[in-house]
Amino acid sequence: MNYIGVDLGGTNISVGLVDEDGNVLKKLTLPTLIERGKNAVMRDIENLCKKLIAESDVEIKAIGIGTPGIVSRQKCEIILADNLKFKNVKLKEELTAFEDIPIFIENDANCAAFAEYLFGAAKGHKNSITITLGTGVGGGVILNGKIFTGAFCGGTEIGHMAIVVNGEECTCGRRGCWEAYASATALIRDTRGIAARYPNSSIFDKVGGDIRQIDAKLAFEAADEGDPKMIEVIDKYHKYVAVGIANLINIFEPEVVVIGGGICQRGEKLTKPVLAHVDKMVFGGNKTEVVTAKLGNDAGIIGAAMLCKE
Amino acid sequence: MNYIGVDLGGTNISVGLVDEDGNVLKKLTLPTLIERGKNAVMRDIENLCKKLIAESDVEIKAIGIGTPGIVSRQKCEIILADNLKFKNVKLKEELTAFEDIPIFIENDANCAAFAEYLFGAAKGHKNSITITLGTGVGGGVILNGKIFTGAFCGGTEIGHMAIVVNGEECTCGRRGCWEAYASATALIRDTRGIAARYPNSSIFDKVGGDIRQIDAKLAFEAADEGDPKMIEVIDKYHKYVAVGIANLINIFEPEVVVIGGGICQRGEKLTKPVLAHVDKMVFGGNKTEVVTAKLGNDAGIIGAAMLCKE
Repeated sequence: MNYIGVDLGGTNISVGLVDEDGNVLKKLTLPTLIERGKNAVMRDIENLCKKLIAESDVEIKAIGIGTPGIVSRQKCEIILADNLKFKNVKLKEELTAFEDIPIFIENDANCAAFAEYLFGAAKGHKNSITITLGTGVGGGVILNGKIFTGAFCGGTEIGHMAIVVNGEECTCGRRGCWEAYASATALIRDTRGIAARYPNSSIFDKVGGDIRQIDAKLAFEAADEGDPKMIEVIDKYHKYVAVGIANLINIFEPEVVVIGGGICQRGEKLTKPVLAHVDKMVFGGNKTEVVTAKLGNDAGIIGAAMLCKE
Repeated sequence: MNYIGVDLGGTNISVGLVDEDGNVLKKLTLPTLIERGKNAVMRDIENLCKKLIAESDVEIKAIGIGTPGIVSRQKCEIILADNLKFKNVKLKEELTAFEDIPIFIENDANCAAFAEYLFGAAKGHKNSITITLGTGVGGGVILNGKIFTGAFCGGTEIGHMAIVVNGEECTCGRRGCWEAYASATALIRDTRGIAARYPNSSIFDKVGGDIRQIDAKLAFEAADEGDPKMIEVIDKYHKYVAVGIANLINIFEPEVVVIGGGICQRGEKLTKPVLAHVDKMVFGGNKTEVVTAKLGNDAGIIGAAMLCKE
């Protein structure tokens, strides 16, 4: 049996044909171009799905859609997705070409967490949390093999857990959210600050003084190469990542926490120092593993495709 | 049908006969006197239950025991309860007098949360969190009508969620835990600090300069009476209580958060200012109610008694 997973993002729409074992057999991608408006985006999703179905010539059991923002699974509706500028989009009314195929919807971070649980780094662990450290900090919580959502569909905004009252400004308007310390954006902000303050630093050299060019990869690189200021920045970054993970462990006590996002490519160079901090922070001793994600960018498609199995 | 609930605490053992509707029909209490050791405490529990059964002459469907610390519900075992000095106490081996009556066990904060959900301030709300602001900060999480525990039985240590990295010292050895800001102990610490610094303050007067006499009640009283320094302390206290509640809402999005502990006697004088802060802090707008507990000290007994119904 085969499934279609749609990863609807602010940048791209990716649609994949996924088999029973979570393999992405075929994938089609188009830029989202939000500025065209909702209808154009919906037509693209429909056309990509149709094309995939026509090309693959297999029976499709279900279509699952992962989207940013707040969704109603029962109503199959995107309630609010700020970065798509979508509000109350009823998917069954929008995607009418698939009358015989059931459509499912879920938040994209939840889809990724579900995929990592079914086929990735949290496989076999019925209680797991997958966090994504990227532009922001997102996350999905799997409890007893099911995606956990709050009572009003907007739960698990773990990036907006305050860890430093009156701390750094967050995009959400509050201060001190975990996201303002553990996102790649936060790491880049702190690294640019160091480069600006220390024109003799290797990180300043790396970008020829144009600190806007600094990204997370360069930040880690400079620390790996021994830049003492950048070693401090990365140490502090690991600690703040750990604070949020330790809080989640104190609250949920999952079997495993999976770290996703571009940063997870560092593998044990990331998880080892983070876990060392976490172990010191968990109440009553830490039993939870901390690992990096396995499914990369396809996690969203795979998790969406499997929503019908939840 | 009737049930027996045992609230095993560091100070008292309370045993109650509870009916189907959560009414405590009869209650017996003895001091715990931990220093006597585990066997003496177990004999007291057994004897109190026997006495209650003999006096009441009704059929008992189940005995439930609420205890501090980490428990295994499956094994009916107290894994670790630091303040009772209990480790690996297997209740079915200890309490052998009740062969025909099933025995259940759960963490005491979880029992209180379950009771508030069944019969108290969270009644009818299948997703609720009950926090207790006392010597420490404890809490129980009800998800879909069930007590939520982590994968290793030690979950929902919400008092030890860090909210101020490198902040105030906590009893757990870390810094900046919610408990170090939102417990009655924290409020008393800050109030004593003010009294020590301002010998002209009304709070200093209230205790005739003996600041050790300051308790949470006096702290609120001084603020209610207009002491400007104490108004600041209480405002700050409300804010820190709100930070943790907002974090829990961002994570769990429950229908209601119930505040228990001695402090909850302030009713709306507590919940109104706390909710005003919470409303400003929740990502995407707050939909969760914040109310005070209804069952008082009996919540532990009632929740324990009802464990068989979970």
